[in-house]
Amino acid sequence: MEYKIGTGARCAVIGYGSWATAIVGLLAANGQRVGWYVRNPEVLESLRTEGRNPRYLSDLEFDRDRIAPSDDLDGVVHDADIVILATPSAYLKDFLAPLTVPLRDKFIVSAIKGIVPGDYQTVVEYIHDHYGLSYKQIGLFTGPSHAEEVSRGKLSYLTVVCTDPGNAQRIGEKFAGGNIRLSYSTDLYGIEYGAILKNIYALAVGLAVGLGYGDNFLAVLIANSAGEMTRFLEESYPDKRDTQVSAYLGDLLVTCYSVYSRNRRLGLLIGHGCTVKSALNEMTMVAEGYFAADCIRHINARHKVDMPIAETVYRVLYEGAPARRSMQELTTKLI
Amino acid sequence: MEYKIGTGARCAVIGYGSWATAIVGLLAANGQRVGWYVRNPEVLESLRTEGRNPRYLSDLEFDRDRIAPSDDLDGVVHDADIVILATPSAYLKDFLAPLTVPLRDKFIVSAIKGIVPGDYQTVVEYIHDHYGLSYKQIGLFTGPSHAEEVSRGKLSYLTVVCTDPGNAQRIGEKFAGGNIRLSYSTDLYGIEYGAILKNIYALAVGLAVGLGYGDNFLAVLIANSAGEMTRFLEESYPDKRDTQVSAYLGDLLVTCYSVYSRNRRLGLLIGHGCTVKSALNEMTMVAEGYFAADCIRHINARHKVDMPIAETVYRVLYEGAPARRSMQELTTKLI
Repeated sequence: MEYKIGTGARCAVIGYGSWATAIVGLLAANGQRVGWYVRNPEVLESLRTEGRNPRYLSDLEFDRDRIAPSDDLDGVVHDADIVILATPSAYLKDFLAPLTVPLRDKFIVSAIKGIVPGDYQTVVEYIHDHYGLSYKQIGLFTGPSHAEEVSRGKLSYLTVVCTDPGNAQRIGEKFAGGNIRLSYSTDLYGIEYGAILKNIYALAVGLAVGLGYGDNFLAVLIANSAGEMTRFLEESYPDKRDTQVSAYLGDLLVTCYSVYSRNRRLGLLIGHGCTVKSALNEMTMVAEGYFAADCIRHINARHKVDMPIAETVYRVLYEGAPARRSMQELTTKLI
Repeated sequence: MEYKIGTGARCAVIGYGSWATAIVGLLAANGQRVGWYVRNPEVLESLRTEGRNPRYLSDLEFDRDRIAPSDDLDGVVHDADIVILATPSAYLKDFLAPLTVPLRDKFIVSAIKGIVPGDYQTVVEYIHDHYGLSYKQIGLFTGPSHAEEVSRGKLSYLTVVCTDPGNAQRIGEKFAGGNIRLSYSTDLYGIEYGAILKNIYALAVGLAVGLGYGDNFLAVLIANSAGEMTRFLEESYPDKRDTQVSAYLGDLLVTCYSVYSRNRRLGLLIGHGCTVKSALNEMTMVAEGYFAADCIRHINARHKVDMPIAETVYRVLYEGAPARRSMQELTTKLI
């Protein structure tokens, strides 16, 4: 089935975290009224009365005429043509559980960089399988994007990915604005898996930092991570793709070098000597890389790509392999 | 002419900066007596009496039986089979000026990441042309390597590059040790140009930081720099090379993300509003990227590779293009 997004298509955003809030900010700045599913009563109330999300990016003030926050998921989805998913991947199923309105005539955009825990599926694959949607009506919105920088108007490059370039353009127009540069791609598989893999690599970087490795080694680890990502994409789903651009390598770099990354923090705690269990308990939210490491290993059992870095992270997180010795073994496999 | 390095080959190092000092440290730790040309009288005296370089890596204590520091360049070169160049590229000619001993039976290893100012040549090309040496008797010693980390025993990956893999192995053995991982390559052209280009890109990163761009943009700039480097190497000298490893991308990352990089600092000063002239005056030593930007532009006039980042740096440094507007124009060319 072809699916063509019209110029007047209405958008709705699902989620109320920092990335969801930044996305609503971009859409609203473009003059649209944005549907916004917010299931948290405190956040909802504050958005309605003050035009502010008190939990995330609380500096960002919305024009209240341009947002339509609501805790009625069916209503929000019903009124939208493009539904943008921006929840943590771990809670996606939970967020969508109340939905009874069918999605078959909607275009779904995932702004989630992660996998759906328990199903060994990416968000795109999950939406495709679980809701019976064609890949032609699912897209991605991604890029190296600390939400804080996007919302403060720092120049950011975002990529819209759809199998149909016309649809990507339609979606991109909704986000176009002063400090956003848009790129377009049709590589739904590669960009989604790249974004998932980078969380595993940020976790590996955290492990290395926690274990006391220096900047020389981090650069080697991250360069080899970029190579491992490219290799995985090319061997599991060959395509003409250049990974040395913002949506792949750029996203990897911003995550691996960010001291704020949850994935890096999880690795850091374990590298410092925490058990995996106590490190997970320390985190207020589970790092995406934790689920991704398990999922990628499961998927790669089929492709058999040589992935020493992802494999090391998996063994430390899931098989009780000691972090120090595992990282030492990994150092012999990098070039 | 074939050139085979023997197992008993003796090494000498030319230069007394931090990288030269770290290299002597690695060689001496391996039990060899290392010839060392040190033209600075204060440094020479201190090395002879205390086994320490008072200017660079002054914590590093040499076993005085294992180093042979001298200000007699001819003597040092005469007694060596492998001559390792580790001066700043800007002063290479000056350092080698007193040499009267012929180099024709020596193996020359450049540990310099830069070009020879005025000649539009890399160090390898300069040695080849000026001393009439075959490319078979010239190598490189490179990698992501803050000298401080190497000398403090932090795990570092270094790459030895020779057209003959056997020679690379012979040289590598001299450096092998606890915290050094050695890689080998035959890509003399690609690794040397990659190491030169990365200085230009670190300068671009400094410009962006100085102008107030954020982490999202830096990741995009560095990802595109990696792509530009790969493109330049592939179009100017096609070879089967994977640039997502330590010697290319790793070296780029450690330089671009280092707040200590001289190149980054030069860019930062200009980004903050200094004129190029006053920024150069602020620096105690000229950043390699300054010469590299001119040289690469000259060389690329022949190859005509699309290099928007290197071109922007050139125009800001040499043509008086305003930094802010030039960077803004560059942002429209990245993806």
